[in-house]
Amino acid sequence: MMIRIFVTGGTFDKEYNELNGELFFKDTHLPEMLRLGRSRVDVDIKTLMMIDSLQMTDDDREMIAQNCIETPSDKIVITHGTDTMVETAKKLAGRIPNKTIVLTGAMIPYKFGSSDGLFNLGSALAFVQALPTGVYVAMNGRWFNWDNVWKNRETGRFEELR
Amino acid sequence: MMIRIFVTGGTFDKEYNELNGELFFKDTHLPEMLRLGRSRVDVDIKTLMMIDSLQMTDDDREMIAQNCIETPSDKIVITHGTDTMVETAKKLAGRIPNKTIVLTGAMIPYKFGSSDGLFNLGSALAFVQALPTGVYVAMNGRWFNWDNVWKNRETGRFEELR
Amino acid sequence: MMIRIFVTGGTFDKEYNELNGELFFKDTHLPEMLRLGRSRVDVDIKTLMMIDSLQMTDDDREMIAQNCIETPSDKIVITHGTDTMVETAKKLAGRIPNKTIVLTGAMIPYKFGSSDGLFNLGSALAFVQALPTGVYVAMNGRWFNWDNVWKNRETGRFEELR
Amino acid sequence: MMIRIFVTGGTFDKEYNELNGELFFKDTHLPEMLRLGRSRVDVDIKTLMMIDSLQMTDDDREMIAQNCIETPSDKIVITHGTDTMVETAKKLAGRIPNKTIVLTGAMIPYKFGSSDGLFNLGSALAFVQALPTGVYVAMNGRWFNWDNVWKNRETGRFEELR
Repeated sequence: MMIRIFVTGGTFDKEYNELNGELFFKDTHLPEMLRLGRSRVDVDIKTLMMIDSLQMTDDDREMIAQNCIETPSDKIVITHGTDTMVETAKKLAGRIPNKTIVLTGAMIPYKFGSSDGLFNLGSALAFVQALPTGVYVAMNGRWFNWDNVWKNRETGRFEELR
Repeated sequence: MMIRIFVTGGTFDKEYNELNGELFFKDTHLPEMLRLGRSRVDVDIKTLMMIDSLQMTDDDREMIAQNCIETPSDKIVITHGTDTMVETAKKLAGRIPNKTIVLTGAMIPYKFGSSDGLFNLGSALAFVQALPTGVYVAMNGRWFNWDNVWKNRETGRFEELR
Repeated sequence: MMIRIFVTGGTFDKEYNELNGELFFKDTHLPEMLRLGRSRVDVDIKTLMMIDSLQMTDDDREMIAQNCIETPSDKIVITHGTDTMVETAKKLAGRIPNKTIVLTGAMIPYKFGSSDGLFNLGSALAFVQALPTGVYVAMNGRWFNWDNVWKNRETGRFEELR
Repeated sequence: MMIRIFVTGGTFDKEYNELNGELFFKDTHLPEMLRLGRSRVDVDIKTLMMIDSLQMTDDDREMIAQNCIETPSDKIVITHGTDTMVETAKKLAGRIPNKTIVLTGAMIPYKFGSSDGLFNLGSALAFVQALPTGVYVAMNGRWFNWDNVWKNRETGRFEELR
């Protein structure tokens, strides 16, 4: 049972450029994180884009959906910026039947030491193995159905709508 | 849905004593790890013991089983040393019906920076929420039924028996 | 022999705001860093400002100079953003005789895990104890006279002028 | 002005063996630490031994002394276990005229994240550049003459004798 991981960027993978003091993207840290977690899950990682999710366009989301449809795997984890993670989940819902899709991300870049990323990755990989087909967001140690979640920007937490 | 976390010690919670160069137990790091993971899961943590799992006796395991039986929660995570985690899982199996119990641990102490602990904690909390009733081991990003897992001490990995 | 430490901000003390993804200043991390280094140096820390050194004005530099003049200590460490550290060193030179003043900073925020800050702080505290009176920059493990140093912004390194 | 660094092991370079839970030596972390500190000091690192300083014999100390004598560099840093660092300093004193020799170490292994090692390395490299010829111990942000220092094993701190 191979799990497909699609990388789209987000805070997860941001790094600090010490020459100009800005945050930027270079490569994904997923393989390094899986090594650190001593993961023995059978995964196949593909980087679709490396962007801040506030910059994600409809075309980008369409591309993500196409990749979810075309992959032979029926278990998919998508790493994604938290700001528009719910929007992408909505775009995928209903279009990819018979697959379990889990979106996750991080509030703090993995490279900054105090990141929630490793915790979230562990939970997303577990949820994608154990939840029935559907589109979910995995954040704060919890899972949410795509149609019952929002990011509270005051607190930085994901919450149920009802 | 409250999740009960029982702490028993293990590598997870070991610390380095800089005065004598030995590893020892002080307090559990679970609350700190949950904060780092920005966890919003409703948990209740109880420390049952703080020991190396090679030192765990039958009486200790009986005490763990009693606590699993008596807690009103039907979702339980047990942090445990990896060396005898499977033995404890066996001891619990069949005795606590209608509950989901997930044992997890770490190969590297959380305080040592490069630990797999945060990843394992994220996955254990996810598995306990999503798996049906039963007794499981969650390590290496995977879940194992209590009767189909062993720790390969050559590689440090948990593997299926068959 | 008490050492006066003046904090002015800089990359050293920047933190990541997980709600908006921006870097900001809260409190100085100097006390935490000294604890981590098991420092037993007799120091007295005073925060003069918490700013990016690109924002530092002439008035700010005048205020730093006044504090250097007025402190009874003849050994002073100033933590400072790297971009205008040399400018501030020049402003101090010649005005504070009979004192050893060492400016230092970091290329990576201390809180980001992979920081050079702890190394630089160790070297700055050592240089201020061992160098004769004068105004110096301590970066990259080296010391530079105030009138023989520049920051190479291409490489992020401090170099001699001649 | 090239600085010679002799590595002898000590807590500095200890690692955690996740298969048996014991501490051990593999390679020195000095190059990694110098990279992290963005050090631009001209150094030449040579590993003389990788041992716990409680295991260090008279022959080992003689070998260290010979290396200090034979190196063309007149500035030497020795990384060393803290338990017998003072003993080695005494062995070197008086035998290597016209050189500045600084011994340093760490209370916590560098790989454990919360180490004082990076701070100590920064201060040792600074002291060796700025102090006159002699044999010194650099710990806790301070320098000590070889004949006026002891390690207080109750507190883990280095203190003056008088």
